[in-house]
Amino acid sequence: MVKQNNVNYGKILFMKTALIQQKYYGTKDATIQQTVSMIQQAAQQDAKLVILQELHQTHYFCQNESVEVFDLANSWEEDLQFWSSVAKKNGVVLVTSLFEKRAAGLYHNTAVVFENDGSIAGKYRKMHIPDDPGFYEKFYFTPGDLGFEPIDTSVGKLGVLVCWDQWYPEAARLMALKGAQILIYPTAIGWFEDDAEDEKQRQLDAWIAVQRGHAVANGLPVVAVNRVGFESDDSGVLKGTKFWGNSFAFGPQGEFLAHANHQNEQIIYIDIDLQKGETVRRWWPFLRDRRIENYSDITKRYRD
Amino acid sequence: MVKQNNVNYGKILFMKTALIQQKYYGTKDATIQQTVSMIQQAAQQDAKLVILQELHQTHYFCQNESVEVFDLANSWEEDLQFWSSVAKKNGVVLVTSLFEKRAAGLYHNTAVVFENDGSIAGKYRKMHIPDDPGFYEKFYFTPGDLGFEPIDTSVGKLGVLVCWDQWYPEAARLMALKGAQILIYPTAIGWFEDDAEDEKQRQLDAWIAVQRGHAVANGLPVVAVNRVGFESDDSGVLKGTKFWGNSFAFGPQGEFLAHANHQNEQIIYIDIDLQKGETVRRWWPFLRDRRIENYSDITKRYRD
Repeated sequence: MVKQNNVNYGKILFMKTALIQQKYYGTKDATIQQTVSMIQQAAQQDAKLVILQELHQTHYFCQNESVEVFDLANSWEEDLQFWSSVAKKNGVVLVTSLFEKRAAGLYHNTAVVFENDGSIAGKYRKMHIPDDPGFYEKFYFTPGDLGFEPIDTSVGKLGVLVCWDQWYPEAARLMALKGAQILIYPTAIGWFEDDAEDEKQRQLDAWIAVQRGHAVANGLPVVAVNRVGFESDDSGVLKGTKFWGNSFAFGPQGEFLAHANHQNEQIIYIDIDLQKGETVRRWWPFLRDRRIENYSDITKRYRD
Repeated sequence: MVKQNNVNYGKILFMKTALIQQKYYGTKDATIQQTVSMIQQAAQQDAKLVILQELHQTHYFCQNESVEVFDLANSWEEDLQFWSSVAKKNGVVLVTSLFEKRAAGLYHNTAVVFENDGSIAGKYRKMHIPDDPGFYEKFYFTPGDLGFEPIDTSVGKLGVLVCWDQWYPEAARLMALKGAQILIYPTAIGWFEDDAEDEKQRQLDAWIAVQRGHAVANGLPVVAVNRVGFESDDSGVLKGTKFWGNSFAFGPQGEFLAHANHQNEQIIYIDIDLQKGETVRRWWPFLRDRRIENYSDITKRYRD
């Protein structure tokens, strides 16, 4: 039975949301144990929506290409049952990020959203797949084929996207045009230690800036939940990645709501005003004035 | 004769650009005189590209709806000749923003780019037209019908857009997909004095954030040139607008380049590295991974 869980303070409808920024604890079991503990804390704090980072069950395994790693997806069905029970037990809508085995040789990077009664509210298969040194995702994940569809839940329509999607204004816009009330990005992004400090800052700033831009352009709150901590490349080829944390939230006017640091596990709580987006869109009616008759070239690779 | 004016410092091609943030001097003549003086200064400083703010010849006349105001567009042909001569005399590529009279009863908000020999390099008719209290542009300007086409000049392909366009990721993307090397936004945006200080800050931050997002998403430098100073509503209905200045530039990684204040006329100089965009796009190959087969709903008003 789905609980209608938003809290109505007078005229303003707030949704208490928890962003769980976490590190990897060396094994899946130890990591999950910590995640569950943090979800319990969030539920005790009355969070109604809990968001986990990308591929939160394990290390970020895309630092190299290894066929053995596909074994991690063998537990896909069990993983669904497990997180279903966690959502139900804690009475929260839970955004997870799992390694989906769809068939032998066919895998996806899939966000699964569980209702607070443990049912599956919906899935989103990561649409934009990166591939660059240390992030060899094209080897592991078939690009998603479910499109950009918000997931309807008891706390609102969630525009769940994943990591590399965050750099694409098209993805955010398509979610907004389908009625998403919030944009949510589970993420695993970090620095190479050898990069200069100013380059690290530029990368972090750009990552925040592009997503804040989606909030403004679409009049929607934006939440990103990133992994934290150093993880080595177990192939020994690369020097590993320092995941930069910095999970954040902006409101529908692009206003700052919350920001985690770059080094610690943290649960960030935000009260999302689900009605403010409509107010902002009345002030700034961008959707009214889109020149849709002139946008068709967006579907081209390049206008050449 | 077009001069090839970019300065090649070893392997790096810089383009010295001047952003002229200006106030209105009570008459068109006085305002233009000041603008020309600032362009001369910029040329003496060796700027190759000079960018003026939106509707820089006059006050921002859209604070009310008045049929007499269309008289301002009667000088369209003379205006073209005048700014052509200024561009030629100073040997700069000049981005102007003019009130175009196309026919009786048919007007556009048009950016005209002049080559450094005085020829017209191209025009852009503002595509997205706002309409909200104090910014009644739908009364004055027919939405542009030239599409989103970069303008080819001796200093590069300029993705010239105007003001309200800056809130639309589609416009920036279409310019990028057609080979724009820089995004340029002449602008007239400001505060109402009655707005609370924190609301003013949110508006300013959002305006910067969304355009910085375009830089990151497209791997392109972004420049916005805004008007400054208070202008009353000569109909007496509204209390007038304090144009907030804050002209700025970000590089192709979204990195900060320059920023004007909110109260003074200023010429901001930036050296734009026209090759850095390619480097950034190699690091972050967003164009490689766009899911164009799934973007067609961008051309819908809403996905309902």
